[in-house]
Amino acid sequence: MKEKPLSSLCTPALVVDVDKVKRNALRMIERCQNLGVQLRPHMKTHKTLECADIMTGGSRRCIVVSTLAEACFYADHGFDDILYAYSLPLDKVERCADLSERLDLFQILLDHPHALDELKKRPLRDGRMWHVWLKLDCGNGRAGVLHSQPEAISLAQAIVGTKGVELTGVYAHCGNSYNCRGVEQIQAVAQETTDLTLQFMEKLKASGITCKSSIGSTPSCSHPVKDMGKLSEVHPGNYGFYDVQQSVIGSCTLEEVAVKVLTRVIGHCPHRNQLLIDCGWCGLSLDGAGKLPTGYAVIEGHPDLKLLSMTQEHGQVEPISGPLDYSKFPLGSLLTLIPYHSCATAVMHPVYHVHSEGRLLGKWIPTRGW
Amino acid sequence: MKEKPLSSLCTPALVVDVDKVKRNALRMIERCQNLGVQLRPHMKTHKTLECADIMTGGSRRCIVVSTLAEACFYADHGFDDILYAYSLPLDKVERCADLSERLDLFQILLDHPHALDELKKRPLRDGRMWHVWLKLDCGNGRAGVLHSQPEAISLAQAIVGTKGVELTGVYAHCGNSYNCRGVEQIQAVAQETTDLTLQFMEKLKASGITCKSSIGSTPSCSHPVKDMGKLSEVHPGNYGFYDVQQSVIGSCTLEEVAVKVLTRVIGHCPHRNQLLIDCGWCGLSLDGAGKLPTGYAVIEGHPDLKLLSMTQEHGQVEPISGPLDYSKFPLGSLLTLIPYHSCATAVMHPVYHVHSEGRLLGKWIPTRGW
Repeated sequence: MKEKPLSSLCTPALVVDVDKVKRNALRMIERCQNLGVQLRPHMKTHKTLECADIMTGGSRRCIVVSTLAEACFYADHGFDDILYAYSLPLDKVERCADLSERLDLFQILLDHPHALDELKKRPLRDGRMWHVWLKLDCGNGRAGVLHSQPEAISLAQAIVGTKGVELTGVYAHCGNSYNCRGVEQIQAVAQETTDLTLQFMEKLKASGITCKSSIGSTPSCSHPVKDMGKLSEVHPGNYGFYDVQQSVIGSCTLEEVAVKVLTRVIGHCPHRNQLLIDCGWCGLSLDGAGKLPTGYAVIEGHPDLKLLSMTQEHGQVEPISGPLDYSKFPLGSLLTLIPYHSCATAVMHPVYHVHSEGRLLGKWIPTRGW
Repeated sequence: MKEKPLSSLCTPALVVDVDKVKRNALRMIERCQNLGVQLRPHMKTHKTLECADIMTGGSRRCIVVSTLAEACFYADHGFDDILYAYSLPLDKVERCADLSERLDLFQILLDHPHALDELKKRPLRDGRMWHVWLKLDCGNGRAGVLHSQPEAISLAQAIVGTKGVELTGVYAHCGNSYNCRGVEQIQAVAQETTDLTLQFMEKLKASGITCKSSIGSTPSCSHPVKDMGKLSEVHPGNYGFYDVQQSVIGSCTLEEVAVKVLTRVIGHCPHRNQLLIDCGWCGLSLDGAGKLPTGYAVIEGHPDLKLLSMTQEHGQVEPISGPLDYSKFPLGSLLTLIPYHSCATAVMHPVYHVHSEGRLLGKWIPTRGW
């Protein structure tokens, strides 16, 4: 069958440049090899088997997921060594037990003694152990026990002291790197998170506990500091696709972004100096709140255009200044949106159209739900 | 099988109160009967067969859709008289032709002579006619030919003059009613859109053209003005579910909102005076931009709490003032979010859990894509 061009797609359509994904993935694999740290890629951005294959270098081992739906999806397709990196939700203990009993290595994460109590109530069959990572907050300010609180050490001790439960590691997400601008700031956060995690590991060691350590975010792992080599693992995820946000932070260039949304001009509104496109928030998401100089996205090849607003299935585009030259944008003509946040855009699409140099190769189907 | 309670669901979960949907739908049917206008409910909010059955009173006829995926989904399941109310996208003419040839009555919408040219190039088989609505902009400021422009009349004339094409009606969306606060403002927009549409129909009549007319939005159809009875049809959609936005506009009370997101407490953060919940933007959407006094949603029964921010799978909740009483919110306890915009929230969920008075009855599966 002749390979079709991107222009054969009905729009809006999420298109993935598989060559860029492979380059982004390979670069991260090499970066981690050079650092001497195990890469455990996060699946939450794409949620597909094919991208997981690329990011694991074909091993189908050693991944992180954000939902149990992802965990089950990957487990059902031959993946193993899966870390469900989400503070153990008490309504999902039985489903986690099931995965722990099915897989060679299913790992969970917790940050509260109540969650540990729930594990005690549900011993695993066949002498299996619960593999638990302690979630540490090293300044990110979301989930996790604060690194500086005595409760962090006492929770680690409680995990170690619980029959049927193993403390596998300490896990910190440096999501605060998303506030950085440029490599210097990114590396300052990476250094701080690494230092705080390693200091915590020392405290654990002093109380006789040894286990793995892991930190990660796409900015910090795109520009790692040398000391990250002292950690056991890193767990970035967005880097397979990247996006405008990552380019603004400084994790990547705009050219490295592997995922775009194709859209078409569906209306001319000269009385408002605007174009209408067939991509609304249903095809892009509202992430970024339209605060880029170019609004909700970057319109490839048109730095003078702004995606001003969206409703469910419509986008309103206008020039940043001056009158719009409608002759350049006939009805039906294609525009390419580079998404602000690829995690948020990808979740809006039931199908990703995969291409190499503009020739369509096939479709990736992501999993959804919880 | 014993009916399970809502609390048996893993979270986040979209739950639909089917009794409220039925009441909302019946009230709209009765309102339109009293006005003497045909109701053509819009499917874009829910995109399910079951809710479509309720909104059409079981007829499975006379609906509006926002995407061709919806049109095909409903056509495949025995629905007919479907209006694809989206300015004809030039990449989808062949798919529209296919539906026009399959169904008794498939209707499209256009607002540009180029789209009409495309219809000329694709005559329908078996002597069938393209059924075309002219999209008119009566002040909404999105798609459509401006009602005041001479091009509106000349496009209507061109449609009438094209072989194989029938001008079925004139279609206006009064989405500007979303800027209203209270019944008076809503009815002012409803009156203005009705007046402008009826004036346009008079102009058409003066040039020898008669066809149907339709306006609609959930606010205007929740509080219709008497003159809307002079129109052929109205086409609201959101009213089956309603949401916080509609209650702020004044279309409904908060008690009439039929769709909620169940979430659970997954973290206590006393150092930030916050709770973490297991619903992020992946389960709620970012619509509303967090600008409600209670942030991104209303937390049912807790007017003192604010959903401050979200990441993909986490929500951060804090009190509007004062310290949080954590004893009221143990880990694992349920909270109920009333979504700001149900269209945006529903699209995030692959499954809706349907209940009557808190007893689960089953699942509705929406369609997706384009």
